[in-house]
Amino acid sequence: MRRIFVIGIGVGDPDHMTVQAIKALNRASVFFIPDKGAEKAALRDLRIAICERFVEKPAYRTVAVEVPQRASSGDYLDGVDEWHGRLADIYGALLERELGEDDVGALLVWGDPTIYDSTLRIVEQMRVKGLALEFEVIPGISSVQVLAARHRIALNQIGEGVLLTTGRKLAEGFPDDADSVVVLLDGVQAFARLADQNLEIFWGAYLGTEHEILRAGKLAHVRDEIAAVRREARERHGWIMDIYLLRRSEREHG
Amino acid sequence: MRRIFVIGIGVGDPDHMTVQAIKALNRASVFFIPDKGAEKAALRDLRIAICERFVEKPAYRTVAVEVPQRASSGDYLDGVDEWHGRLADIYGALLERELGEDDVGALLVWGDPTIYDSTLRIVEQMRVKGLALEFEVIPGISSVQVLAARHRIALNQIGEGVLLTTGRKLAEGFPDDADSVVVLLDGVQAFARLADQNLEIFWGAYLGTEHEILRAGKLAHVRDEIAAVRREARERHGWIMDIYLLRRSEREHG
Repeated sequence: MRRIFVIGIGVGDPDHMTVQAIKALNRASVFFIPDKGAEKAALRDLRIAICERFVEKPAYRTVAVEVPQRASSGDYLDGVDEWHGRLADIYGALLERELGEDDVGALLVWGDPTIYDSTLRIVEQMRVKGLALEFEVIPGISSVQVLAARHRIALNQIGEGVLLTTGRKLAEGFPDDADSVVVLLDGVQAFARLADQNLEIFWGAYLGTEHEILRAGKLAHVRDEIAAVRREARERHGWIMDIYLLRRSEREHG
Repeated sequence: MRRIFVIGIGVGDPDHMTVQAIKALNRASVFFIPDKGAEKAALRDLRIAICERFVEKPAYRTVAVEVPQRASSGDYLDGVDEWHGRLADIYGALLERELGEDDVGALLVWGDPTIYDSTLRIVEQMRVKGLALEFEVIPGISSVQVLAARHRIALNQIGEGVLLTTGRKLAEGFPDDADSVVVLLDGVQAFARLADQNLEIFWGAYLGTEHEILRAGKLAHVRDEIAAVRREARERHGWIMDIYLLRRSEREHG
């Protein structure tokens, strides 16, 4: 029986770590650090910085995980199951090789493991494929929360719902019955096509890091500025991770 | 100019506190602790326990805030603006009286201040009423995340959206286009009327505390058990705080 923690580490600021996550880090002995190529080097660096800062025992190991590239977020569903299956094989083999009887492994997940992250599906596939695995999930501060906190707004309007969704889904249109919509994983800037809808946007990129950028306003007014700022920042850093909240502006905000 | 932090403290387990929240606590000198009567005594106790455990400076003060009762969640919108206005008057007067030039106040919010919490609206109303107030929002682990972490599931199915909503809204029916729905503030057990809809439920109460209860399964199978467990626990503790995720069970979960 292998044992692992799946630990949410927040989104860029090591101070997002919870006491619970720090305790889990210190019960682990082997850290599996994915390497997804240039785009995610910043994420790998954060994981390593968190281990160095918070793990108190001297004897821990990190194991690099070679992560295959999957289709971009524009083709989110294409082959995603096959991709999870390949990752389950890769992680499963590493866990079997690297975790001894007394070891506890840790998978450090950007944001929160339960919000648009594939780690729990990969763990499930490892178990389905027959790996005996005990695991515990530690929540982490998500980009959704940091976006709202930095803009100092509630995600919901009074008594109304909040839809979390993807850029791919939003590209089908702003849902008729939705009031507030948080959009993650938007590789296609789906917001740009909704400027006629009387929406407000609260946008953020590189949240929690020194490169954080925030913009907010009526979508029709700030759409072009956000698109330009986003393009420029993406070129400068070589990658971008952004998120936004859209909400109907004709409602009162109480 | 008064200065305050609005700090998310997680949902029952002091280990939910983030490093960022602990730092903010230690920059504050005056803690405003609401007293909402018997039902929320457990929440007040948690706030006090968190101050005692994490605040390192000896010279801090706590100020009790008398919170008027508002209508139950069944009448969520009735008078909610008026209620926020009264709270803004109460908090505004206390902040003016208790915060000196060098003080920093702290409002400790159960869960995350941006997710179905009224603190940010009250702060906004204080500013609208003319109080000069600088404030910063610190995200906290929410019950939504703890629910999913304890059930060890992703909130979303692959590529699909997640709707956060209230029991009052769910009582209008399970939204046609929704896939996963997280229900907060359900005083009417709206899930009980949806047993014919082929849904799965993941339910949790007193999350993060020693009294935590979890149940999951096909809604038609576990609905009555959850209703009974909920009723019994509510009687025993004198209050209950619960949350659940409903999702369509005909979809594959990948």
